Amino acid sequence: MARAIVLLSGGLDSCVTTAVAAREHDLFLLHLRYGQRTEARERRAFESIADHYSVPDDRRLIVDTGFLAQIGASALTDPDIEIPEADLESDTIPITYVPFRNAHLLSLGVSWAETVAADAVYIGVVQEDSSGYPDCTETFCQAFSKAVQAGTKEGRVEVRTPVIDLEKARIVGLGQELNAPLHLTWSCYTNDDLACGVCDSCVLRLRAFEAAGVSDPVSYA
Amino acid sequence: MARAIVLLSGGLDSCVTTAVAAREHDLFLLHLRYGQRTEARERRAFESIADHYSVPDDRRLIVDTGFLAQIGASALTDPDIEIPEADLESDTIPITYVPFRNAHLLSLGVSWAETVAADAVYIGVVQEDSSGYPDCTETFCQAFSKAVQAGTKEGRVEVRTPVIDLEKARIVGLGQELNAPLHLTWSCYTNDDLACGVCDSCVLRLRAFEAAGVSDPVSYA
Repeated sequence: MARAIVLLSGGLDSCVTTAVAAREHDLFLLHLRYGQRTEARERRAFESIADHYSVPDDRRLIVDTGFLAQIGASALTDPDIEIPEADLESDTIPITYVPFRNAHLLSLGVSWAETVAADAVYIGVVQEDSSGYPDCTETFCQAFSKAVQAGTKEGRVEVRTPVIDLEKARIVGLGQELNAPLHLTWSCYTNDDLACGVCDSCVLRLRAFEAAGVSDPVSYA
Repeated sequence: MARAIVLLSGGLDSCVTTAVAAREHDLFLLHLRYGQRTEARERRAFESIADHYSVPDDRRLIVDTGFLAQIGASALTDPDIEIPEADLESDTIPITYVPFRNAHLLSLGVSWAETVAADAVYIGVVQEDSSGYPDCTETFCQAFSKAVQAGTKEGRVEVRTPVIDLEKARIVGLGQELNAPLHLTWSCYTNDDLACGVCDSCVLRLRAFEAAGVSDPVSYA
């Protein structure tokens, strides 16, 4: 089977994206660490999903992308610079506020794809969720894909975004159909063994499972 | 004046690129650290050139891109993966061998550009020097620029490559015309106060100055 890189945070969208990729590819799984509050928990979800798909250790790569937070924070040091809109008190993570973030993630995937001769990079970006971030659109992903073709040796690495146009409930449904290990995913912003059920991310997730008519296999506090 | 990000390693090409950018932009200078042998010396060149252009500290950003070497090295851990062509014994640096490298550098520039409301990212890539790396071509840079337009808020950040088509001697000449601080640049692969004059990089540099009819202001051992 051809090889593919999958960006796998350990959340629902990237897990279902992994399940889509697994149908036709040998998996190489890429996970990012950037000082997020739930780093250890997300890492555990990543490793469990990788185990589920029998991905060997040398096909799992953890990359430290703390440099993104550094760029985001640079706005804070220059009094002439207007701070980008961001709710710094919220539970969300600084990386959210880094413009052009998905270009970094895709570039990591593409560099690894070239190194290991993979021919696709999967990313679980969801346009609906992304508050209008321009780097979460299909237009951007397609333009980036053309840059990948121009900037790689054989121009054969493709960017794939299988869930980009799906509603959250449809993503849950697709995960069910593909036997994705949804019980191993982690969406909660807290770092515990039980999901809190009340943070924004838990609420969105629970609603999606409900709309899909599927019971969420993760345990809640 | 409008703001621009410039990727400034401290070498000849990026110094002349900085001089081009300085004609019409307020400068924000971005330097990469990735465990290169000459890290400290390159950093010194970067800071001196930044001083020369009176760029304040909060408009200088040093980003650690060690993650690129990590991706390059990942090929070494999987016995099934054919090691990409690379002369690991040479004086050149591991980052050279990371495919799609310039996408990472440009993405860093674009994220910072969006953060500080700059409207251009300059990179001193030179097609002639780049042994056919596809991410050093004008075709790639233009395709990437389109992805930038699609993936950023106002789509106004432009990628600029003022020396991409120039021969090395012409870059020296352009630097002279623009009073670029060529005496502050560093090209040697060694880490000393005096350039060695015999490594590949010194030899190419010396040839370029000779062809341009300019004497190299840097001191040689």
